[in-house]
Amino acid sequence: MAHQAHQELLQVLNACVAACEHCANACLNEPDVAKMTECIRLDRDCADICALTAQWIARDSHFTQRLTALCAAICDACGAECGKHQHHDHCRECAEACRRCAEACRSMTA
Amino acid sequence: MAHQAHQELLQVLNACVAACEHCANACLNEPDVAKMTECIRLDRDCADICALTAQWIARDSHFTQRLTALCAAICDACGAECGKHQHHDHCRECAEACRRCAEACRSMTA
Amino acid sequence: MAHQAHQELLQVLNACVAACEHCANACLNEPDVAKMTECIRLDRDCADICALTAQWIARDSHFTQRLTALCAAICDACGAECGKHQHHDHCRECAEACRRCAEACRSMTA
Amino acid sequence: MAHQAHQELLQVLNACVAACEHCANACLNEPDVAKMTECIRLDRDCADICALTAQWIARDSHFTQRLTALCAAICDACGAECGKHQHHDHCRECAEACRRCAEACRSMTA
Repeated sequence: MAHQAHQELLQVLNACVAACEHCANACLNEPDVAKMTECIRLDRDCADICALTAQWIARDSHFTQRLTALCAAICDACGAECGKHQHHDHCRECAEACRRCAEACRSMTA
Repeated sequence: MAHQAHQELLQVLNACVAACEHCANACLNEPDVAKMTECIRLDRDCADICALTAQWIARDSHFTQRLTALCAAICDACGAECGKHQHHDHCRECAEACRRCAEACRSMTA
Repeated sequence: MAHQAHQELLQVLNACVAACEHCANACLNEPDVAKMTECIRLDRDCADICALTAQWIARDSHFTQRLTALCAAICDACGAECGKHQHHDHCRECAEACRRCAEACRSMTA
Repeated sequence: MAHQAHQELLQVLNACVAACEHCANACLNEPDVAKMTECIRLDRDCADICALTAQWIARDSHFTQRLTALCAAICDACGAECGKHQHHDHCRECAEACRRCAEACRSMTA
């Protein structure tokens, strides 16, 4: 039962989707939005790939490991960018969600 | 903070994604797969719309209520179909996840 | 054969996905990005819903008409916002893609 | 302008989405659906990844090349499976759409 065996990974992925979507939207509300554009771009990609990865894990896709590997790389990039903007709560929280998600994806990939 | 205010709804949506994806895949493994085709179809649509709804709630989209209304209708249909196949654990569990998700979406829509 | 009968609608939907994704990214590159945040938000939602609608039409989902109705409403909103920024080529082109897509979706819904 | 420079790739990707979605649904309608389950699984993954790849190309994502590489691999797998069922029109057409899409994705990846 892929969706039960990987329940923790699914939770971490879904938390990362929510953190990235919230961060992208919150960045658009910031007075310094011009400095946040790279963060918004990476948040979008990261939310999309984490959501797809969660779906594929639950359906026990043949390509789960390929997708978790890519997902980890994107979480790394998004977390690194968000980590530059720790004065924004949404970025600091998103960086942490990305770090956890990258780690969880890598432990599944290995 | 849409992703925190709606944390319970997000969990119910994500649980429904996982249940539907798992059910679709498990139906494909059943000896009586020919009887499960409608279930597979509805599982797919339900997983997709629940995943999108979770993303849009987290990003505080202007169309959240339109999407939760549609999501509730699809959860109803998927849950009704899965409810006909209670001898399969994955269908019984999916019907329950759909029922909860439809209810949560409707309470947000109202 | 849903994907052949609706080939023109699929093309219009896919053109709208591309126009919205491009517009969102181009808005993030504009010096006046602070004025483009609503456009970026609507571009995202519009790209997502058009992409999903194209998938559901091709799979002949039971919920195609519900989805094209929602898609038309979101295309209307996105096109109206993009139409305010006609000095940006990407917004003008996106407004036109949204207008065509809303019309095509409505003719399917009716 | 990523969405214009890559217009042909986007068309091939979108044609593959439509062919895979249609094939999955048509397989569910076949009397020998029990033999088509692997095809249905791969069609789903292939449709999802092609749709996401088209969105990311249009938004000029940093991860486009990583995604086209993965997309090509999944198109290969889906095309190989569909190629086993050439007596079904939808499988033969889907195998051809997957072959073209894998080739186009690889030429972008290189």
